[in-house]
Amino acid sequence: MNEADTNNNSREHCLELDRTDALAPLRDEFLLQDGLIYLDGNSLGAMPKAALACAERVIQNEWGKDLIKSWNKAGWFDLPSRLGDLLAPLIGAHAGEVVVTDSTSINLFKAIAAALQMQTERGEQQRKIIITERGNFPTDIYMADGIAQWLNKGYQVHLINSVEELPAALNDNIALVMLTHVNYRTGYLHDMQKVTAQVQQHGGFMLWDLAHSAGALALDLHAANADFAVGCTYKYLNGGPGAPAFIWVPKRHQDKFNQPLQGWWAHAQPFAMTPEFTPTHGIRRALCGTQPIVSLAMVEAGLSIFSRTNMPALREKSLALTDLFIALVEQRCSQHPLQLVTPRTHHQRGSQVSFTHPDGYGVMQALIARNIIGDYREPAIMRFGFTPLYTRFVDVWDAVEGLRDILDNNKYQRDAVRHAVT
Amino acid sequence: MNEADTNNNSREHCLELDRTDALAPLRDEFLLQDGLIYLDGNSLGAMPKAALACAERVIQNEWGKDLIKSWNKAGWFDLPSRLGDLLAPLIGAHAGEVVVTDSTSINLFKAIAAALQMQTERGEQQRKIIITERGNFPTDIYMADGIAQWLNKGYQVHLINSVEELPAALNDNIALVMLTHVNYRTGYLHDMQKVTAQVQQHGGFMLWDLAHSAGALALDLHAANADFAVGCTYKYLNGGPGAPAFIWVPKRHQDKFNQPLQGWWAHAQPFAMTPEFTPTHGIRRALCGTQPIVSLAMVEAGLSIFSRTNMPALREKSLALTDLFIALVEQRCSQHPLQLVTPRTHHQRGSQVSFTHPDGYGVMQALIARNIIGDYREPAIMRFGFTPLYTRFVDVWDAVEGLRDILDNNKYQRDAVRHAVT
Repeated sequence: MNEADTNNNSREHCLELDRTDALAPLRDEFLLQDGLIYLDGNSLGAMPKAALACAERVIQNEWGKDLIKSWNKAGWFDLPSRLGDLLAPLIGAHAGEVVVTDSTSINLFKAIAAALQMQTERGEQQRKIIITERGNFPTDIYMADGIAQWLNKGYQVHLINSVEELPAALNDNIALVMLTHVNYRTGYLHDMQKVTAQVQQHGGFMLWDLAHSAGALALDLHAANADFAVGCTYKYLNGGPGAPAFIWVPKRHQDKFNQPLQGWWAHAQPFAMTPEFTPTHGIRRALCGTQPIVSLAMVEAGLSIFSRTNMPALREKSLALTDLFIALVEQRCSQHPLQLVTPRTHHQRGSQVSFTHPDGYGVMQALIARNIIGDYREPAIMRFGFTPLYTRFVDVWDAVEGLRDILDNNKYQRDAVRHAVT
Repeated sequence: MNEADTNNNSREHCLELDRTDALAPLRDEFLLQDGLIYLDGNSLGAMPKAALACAERVIQNEWGKDLIKSWNKAGWFDLPSRLGDLLAPLIGAHAGEVVVTDSTSINLFKAIAAALQMQTERGEQQRKIIITERGNFPTDIYMADGIAQWLNKGYQVHLINSVEELPAALNDNIALVMLTHVNYRTGYLHDMQKVTAQVQQHGGFMLWDLAHSAGALALDLHAANADFAVGCTYKYLNGGPGAPAFIWVPKRHQDKFNQPLQGWWAHAQPFAMTPEFTPTHGIRRALCGTQPIVSLAMVEAGLSIFSRTNMPALREKSLALTDLFIALVEQRCSQHPLQLVTPRTHHQRGSQVSFTHPDGYGVMQALIARNIIGDYREPAIMRFGFTPLYTRFVDVWDAVEGLRDILDNNKYQRDAVRHAVT
């Protein structure tokens, strides 16, 4: 190791990076156990300390004491749009364009259904193809398949192997392209603006799943002229386990946004209780039924932390963390069969780093056993997520040191049986 | 007032009924403020004291400390079916037939979609009619309309004015009849067994919405041979505001239960992450995406209280409470223009009592102002719900006394503007 390496790549250097990190104080907003190196915020974000007090307020005061009055008094009924407005700036959306509601799967269904309907209503009945990636998160594909099969009107889901195949796959029969902005397995980051333009040039709608990018990097849905977006609040937005998801419909599409999950929360006068469905104006058309208020309210605890920083600053730290992790792994574990899956190029990388290892499952189990928490995804992929709000540079060092020790000293189970991991 | 009346209908007599009520101790399980008379448990059930500790455990320990491990370690992934098994005995269902998940609206969609699909698959393509009541809870109608309009294959929602019109409306074109077992506005209780048999005799499926009956009266879905059921956990089951709903699919239909909301939680191997959707066996086919764990987990606090009693005992008390309320209102408020909407006959009455009054909105506001909480529904209906787990006989007396005083002394606003009430 030469002197430059010693300077740049030492535990002391990482501690120094943390000392000078302007975002470092934000870690105090989260409950993180001593000794835990949590690199799985891309799957379930850590707990904001304020979440517990938020839940206690909702349960004890709003539910326990004010009971039914809280629908108005505590603003429960408005919560999906109020939280949506808080979330909007993080994804380059405007107020009145986002609601936090239901699950990502359900919101995908709404957006896909509405997009197909809009193609039909503008006279483009021949547009029957939905394109997505074979490596997209499975539920995205399943929901599209569910609609296509169920309608039984010739709709088809066409799977491409990578975005390079997209231009050749586009034609006048495309209804919709749906992609996850950052791939859950590889960490590959799509060029939102370029892809959206390609799709729209052929008359297709572009739906982005922001599950692995909202809260992790700067997003500008309007600059990209995207058509629809959905996403998750329990990963980089730290909303709590299974917290309700979000859906974005830009103002230009809202009056045409019709989909079959038309529950009473989307009614123009929900309390008039009429048998005829008259959709409301605006983004609340994307609502359906009554929302799980405690889980929903806690989303605010996660979102409010973002008001203390900004997405460019978070992105800068995120890239510094992932750069450092890649460099340290390649330097300190170089004699082991690790293959980097995540792109090195900044503009193609989200906030996670994935490496394959032939015994990836066993190695990850060994890391977890020593409190270095990443996760495993078939096939052979070890995922490490770096949430810039609370991950320290020294965590990166310590994680790589743990990995090095496990690999150098064969401290993992070979050919471990791969069972369900979440 | 003669002596018999004095004996039977006095505050002292009500206090005596409470003293000898075997269910009275169950009230201690709930947080209910002193001086509050809560007759709106049919809209939002009161808070079980255990709910707060449950949420704190999930937030602080399972999320905060164990983080991602809790999907397996704390059983988060199994929660919909574990809670479903706890709920099953309350509705006459078997283990493995119920999941607690999503909203009632979303679950209605799943059941309606699956029923239509099943008719087609058994070669009954001509069955295009979905029958429901004009006075059903609006979201039930909206969801059926959403499916019918969106499929655009000749499906129609036919609204009947009352169940008396059902026999004449049944024919070989009926796909599905969907009714709410207890009407949210009138408190009318359908004869589940009789109606189900009528519908099935004509080859239709029968879907019951149990929102206003689960936890309020003894239910036996199997004895009635019902086809599908959905319901709500935040009313008589006291699961918390907007807590996830439930869906029941009997074993005989589960392998044919296909619907387009096919998210990854319904996959046979959800963590294999394959692009092809292979549905799991059993009731988890009715799942879709990731669930809001904190709101979901709290449902257990409500359900576990039922293990200390049984539905026939609760039903007996419920009828005693509603009988008493009707008798006292008619006796003590007899000179006022109150009209009983709810049936007097026990087998046609749920656990609520509704009266109309020309100034129903203003009268209800006056009651609420003195901490007697019922609610108002258009047109002119004052609703009073009686949850037998925590409502006392003396609450009935005091509520009627409040109503009498407000009416006798004109202590309410006439022609009050009726705005949104939940």
